Amino acid sequence: MADDALVIFTPSGKRGRFAFGTPVLTAARQLGVDLDSVCGGRGICSKCQISPGYGEFAKHGVTVAAEALTEWNAVEEHYRSKRGMMEGRRLGCQAQVMGDVVIDVPPESQVHKQVIRKSATQRDIVMDPATRLIYIEVDEPDMHEPSGDFERVSKALAAQWQVEGVEADLAILRRLQPVLRKGAWKITVALHKGNHDRAPRILDLWPGFHEGGLYGLAIDLGSTTIAAHLCDLRDGEVLASSGLMNPQIRFGEDLMSRVSYAMMNPGGDVEMTRAVRETINALAGSIAAEAGVDPQAIYEVVFVCNPVMHHLLMGIDPVELGQAPFALATSGSLSLDARELDLVAINRAARVYVLPCIAGHVGADCAAVALSEEPGKSKDLVLIVDVGTNAEILLGNESRVLACSSPTGPAFEGAQISSGQRAAPGAIERVEIDAATKEPRFKVIGSDLWSTEAGFAEATATSGITGICGSGIIEAVAEMRMAGLVDQSGLIGGPDQTGTARSVPEGRTHSYVLHDGTATGGPMILVTQGDIRAIQLAKAALYAGARLLMDEMGVDVVDRVTLAGAFGAHISPKHAMVLGMIPDVPLDRVISAGNAAGTGARIALCNVGARNAIEVTVGEIHKVETAIEPRFQEHFVNASAIPNAVDTFPELSKIVTLPDVAFNTAGSGSDGGRRRRRG
Amino acid sequence: MADDALVIFTPSGKRGRFAFGTPVLTAARQLGVDLDSVCGGRGICSKCQISPGYGEFAKHGVTVAAEALTEWNAVEEHYRSKRGMMEGRRLGCQAQVMGDVVIDVPPESQVHKQVIRKSATQRDIVMDPATRLIYIEVDEPDMHEPSGDFERVSKALAAQWQVEGVEADLAILRRLQPVLRKGAWKITVALHKGNHDRAPRILDLWPGFHEGGLYGLAIDLGSTTIAAHLCDLRDGEVLASSGLMNPQIRFGEDLMSRVSYAMMNPGGDVEMTRAVRETINALAGSIAAEAGVDPQAIYEVVFVCNPVMHHLLMGIDPVELGQAPFALATSGSLSLDARELDLVAINRAARVYVLPCIAGHVGADCAAVALSEEPGKSKDLVLIVDVGTNAEILLGNESRVLACSSPTGPAFEGAQISSGQRAAPGAIERVEIDAATKEPRFKVIGSDLWSTEAGFAEATATSGITGICGSGIIEAVAEMRMAGLVDQSGLIGGPDQTGTARSVPEGRTHSYVLHDGTATGGPMILVTQGDIRAIQLAKAALYAGARLLMDEMGVDVVDRVTLAGAFGAHISPKHAMVLGMIPDVPLDRVISAGNAAGTGARIALCNVGARNAIEVTVGEIHKVETAIEPRFQEHFVNASAIPNAVDTFPELSKIVTLPDVAFNTAGSGSDGGRRRRRG
Repeated sequence: MADDALVIFTPSGKRGRFAFGTPVLTAARQLGVDLDSVCGGRGICSKCQISPGYGEFAKHGVTVAAEALTEWNAVEEHYRSKRGMMEGRRLGCQAQVMGDVVIDVPPESQVHKQVIRKSATQRDIVMDPATRLIYIEVDEPDMHEPSGDFERVSKALAAQWQVEGVEADLAILRRLQPVLRKGAWKITVALHKGNHDRAPRILDLWPGFHEGGLYGLAIDLGSTTIAAHLCDLRDGEVLASSGLMNPQIRFGEDLMSRVSYAMMNPGGDVEMTRAVRETINALAGSIAAEAGVDPQAIYEVVFVCNPVMHHLLMGIDPVELGQAPFALATSGSLSLDARELDLVAINRAARVYVLPCIAGHVGADCAAVALSEEPGKSKDLVLIVDVGTNAEILLGNESRVLACSSPTGPAFEGAQISSGQRAAPGAIERVEIDAATKEPRFKVIGSDLWSTEAGFAEATATSGITGICGSGIIEAVAEMRMAGLVDQSGLIGGPDQTGTARSVPEGRTHSYVLHDGTATGGPMILVTQGDIRAIQLAKAALYAGARLLMDEMGVDVVDRVTLAGAFGAHISPKHAMVLGMIPDVPLDRVISAGNAAGTGARIALCNVGARNAIEVTVGEIHKVETAIEPRFQEHFVNASAIPNAVDTFPELSKIVTLPDVAFNTAGSGSDGGRRRRRG
Repeated sequence: MADDALVIFTPSGKRGRFAFGTPVLTAARQLGVDLDSVCGGRGICSKCQISPGYGEFAKHGVTVAAEALTEWNAVEEHYRSKRGMMEGRRLGCQAQVMGDVVIDVPPESQVHKQVIRKSATQRDIVMDPATRLIYIEVDEPDMHEPSGDFERVSKALAAQWQVEGVEADLAILRRLQPVLRKGAWKITVALHKGNHDRAPRILDLWPGFHEGGLYGLAIDLGSTTIAAHLCDLRDGEVLASSGLMNPQIRFGEDLMSRVSYAMMNPGGDVEMTRAVRETINALAGSIAAEAGVDPQAIYEVVFVCNPVMHHLLMGIDPVELGQAPFALATSGSLSLDARELDLVAINRAARVYVLPCIAGHVGADCAAVALSEEPGKSKDLVLIVDVGTNAEILLGNESRVLACSSPTGPAFEGAQISSGQRAAPGAIERVEIDAATKEPRFKVIGSDLWSTEAGFAEATATSGITGICGSGIIEAVAEMRMAGLVDQSGLIGGPDQTGTARSVPEGRTHSYVLHDGTATGGPMILVTQGDIRAIQLAKAALYAGARLLMDEMGVDVVDRVTLAGAFGAHISPKHAMVLGMIPDVPLDRVISAGNAAGTGARIALCNVGARNAIEVTVGEIHKVETAIEPRFQEHFVNASAIPNAVDTFPELSKIVTLPDVAFNTAGSGSDGGRRRRRG
């Protein structure tokens, strides 16, 4: 009779023969099966729970007897009585193989568990965080073997976890001796994996077995807003998401004005660096409070940002990014100590990873979008547009990926718009204008009702109707065009031309009254000629960038479009296409990916392998510089009109028909330099 | 006719054939000949000067024609006119091979030049410092190849100097862009070699070709004094040597009293850490000022110290070192940033290397002695004694090296001695006592005259005669024994027993009047019974440690003795042997190695390979723990007497004959517990 048995693990399908008495955890490790353990098989952590299957397994060709594993033991009973355990589960470190057996590893027992997408726009993330907890038992000191305590910790990590050459800074060495003695030579360490040939590093340590949380921040540091996700590094769960305005706005709304501020004001870059670091500390504190997490348990931060924000965060004067050839001080990824960035709100040993930049105008945020959306793995040709104060644009498929950045300015985010505001309760986010009556209806953030529906006034009583956010202004302008209130050059017609009293004169131009709240003490919300011009400039920049990449790729059409950006999530594809923000594709081929840069940051936070992957990918992305490309200017000029898109893109005729109007007013001189297409 | 030629380099003897037109520097590099260059062959630095030989070289079998190298060129002429150049020298990067040639590389053109010993006690050091200057030419940024400036610096280092994977911290990245532009894409970097698998690192950078100094500090951090050498990292020259008292003395004179201070006073360790770091900063500043060097040009610091000082320097509570099993927090070498130790007086990017400790009582200072004295390379059995507040003792030869530490206390350094003082002008350092008259004569530091010689009073008028330093008290006690003023138990005889009025009563014991300066307002300098007891305890500890190692090695005699320690340099071997400080060997086999720990620090500072070497060596040294070894106590008790050494060690009879006296006084009860050997 054999004294070994066949062990089959599911769902991996890995199998092997093991001597009787082999613990299931040992078998799993030898086969490379993904079975978690913090305590290393000592029956303390219960992370290695497994579900043995019994009976006939025709698929695997085995029959599992009831005695295939050793009996339920005292360690398991102790754990179940104290903490509870699902029926049918065993501890992999306690149950030993005594016959052929099929072992299922439930998702929560896998180290590299997948964080399943919660919506279509969310990527699955395979958990493989840089930092994890590890329990070790350390040899006691011995006068005849006079190694230091740290050297014996290092030896334990090598022997018990195959972690070689661990390092620790002085702050850890300072705490090591009392912790070892308090834990009676058993400790738990927060271990940061080495990457880029760096040694693994102990970030924290506790006496005995420690089960505390390990958290990380994924931060999308934008020109206008700083958005953060607080993630549990054990299971990838997003515990809180929060944002703050970038305090650098007071130094300049867009990137180039901040570069100018640094150039004009000696020490201005230092001032901006301090401001953004302070705000990140504040954000880390508030998001931890929101999630009910100790900020000292935050051990990892991943940043994605555009090149100017990147340099200002690092404390590098961004002046070179303001002039050709737009040289980055460094383009590679950065691995830093959090305290090098003065991030004092979180654990002092916390590590920071900053994604690589693609080029002087195409930053780590674009790299993060590439990590999240993976254009290089797409079979069809995808155009990815990350709309922010700068638009990051990627175009590509399996064979080639191109990237550029286009200076759209903050109009799409509601800034530089007369009634513009951040997307917050009270902001108009959806707009429809009746083509016949020219009367609008709208929705505001915080209510699902249209302004014409019963109960709207009550629903918005608290927030009021305060302004228009980015998606609102895009819809408003597109609807005005569709209703014949705006001609293809972008001019708003006067009341005699449009036939509605909502067209009101404003200097030598006209504005459209979207909402008049003055009767109830609220604001008058107008779409002015200036607003239309701001949106035209922004959308022309965006469109020109996309066209430039299409030229470089040698194509006239793309297969699909992904709208990304915190704001991209709220853009209506139809209105974007009416405006001419994006090239025409069938409407069902336009998807919104939400904050793809933030998702990319979250992927890099939860999976250390993704960091290496994006560093390779970034090297393969071909970057196109809009600032020096004459065709960009040409595309830009051509794209400033809001043409009768139906002419150009028959696809659009299924959605809308644009009126063929043209308003000529005395005040339209500002548009003189641009070519206009007339119907 | 061949279009290549034979090139022979001396003194290395390396040879090879090279195509006509090959620069001599290129040939040297390809053959691995040690020819220096900072600029990488661009005719800027002139470090690659060579001396071609012409005519018949029978030894090498070649005849060198006058036209064996290309003609003196404009670059060489420019350099000679500006900076001067020795007759017959050429620049290796300019002179090209055009025929068989013999090239001598003068010592100053070698990277790994040897620092030749200046005295018998100084080790030759082969220069291979961790940090050196390197000149590079960096590609300009290009919008079509959008790498960061740092990435192009990294590329230049790889291409021009085969330095791969360089790193730089944020402070360097912050300065990189303006420096590159100011230098028109030519810069000089201070590059720190990677060791222990760490990446090479840029510590500083300058526009263009920079010739400034690079300096390092070798610091021997002792319990009582902190001694530093300021070295030029280019040629190893010691520009200044200086020392300060360890300010921790106010917390306790010896190591154990400092450990007690830390145990008894919460925060006491932090206080001691701050004190020592402040003093190191002060010392760095003053030694740089003394040498006329900018402290910002100090890029390297090497520390050697005992385990307690090691922990207090690192900011680690030394409490575990005060009790068995004397566990070090870490025993390995440490590579740190200077700012982690608050060393703000030197360059902020400076790197610190701390030699490994051997055991809880045997520190990095002992490792440094091993590095300097290399007992493991000795064919005969050498005993090395580094005398300080703790004595570090090494015994070994090629086959095995043992080490221990023995708590001698500060008596040998003049502390705890009634008239004791630091070795400084005015201190009595040499003593002779006439065996017949019992009258002493002595020398004081600052004068070469004996006190009985004419002109002595004038020569010592400025300093005065202020006390006795360590070497003086050893000679005084030994001379008193030889003159029959002290018996073998260590008792000082009364005037009736010794026949001299210089024996004066003091309580129930006697003192010996070495010098009475009271007539001229100076001090009365006595050797008291307490002084003799302190020296007896110290020498017994030292001797017992040495004997313990000899037991472990299974020997009764050693072949030679090396006295090390700042103080060891001044000990008279004869007197040391009379006292019984060291085992008996022929007097000519006792040498003084000066401050061997400081020399070891200097070797590790100037040669990065030596760091790896000592780390390996330390692992091979077998450490003997005196504190738990019963035989140590036994040896200690046996060694407290000052025996008639002639009985035990006939060798000593060639030097001295000790009188066989024994004084019994009522006050000698304090010696009662110890076994005495009587003649």
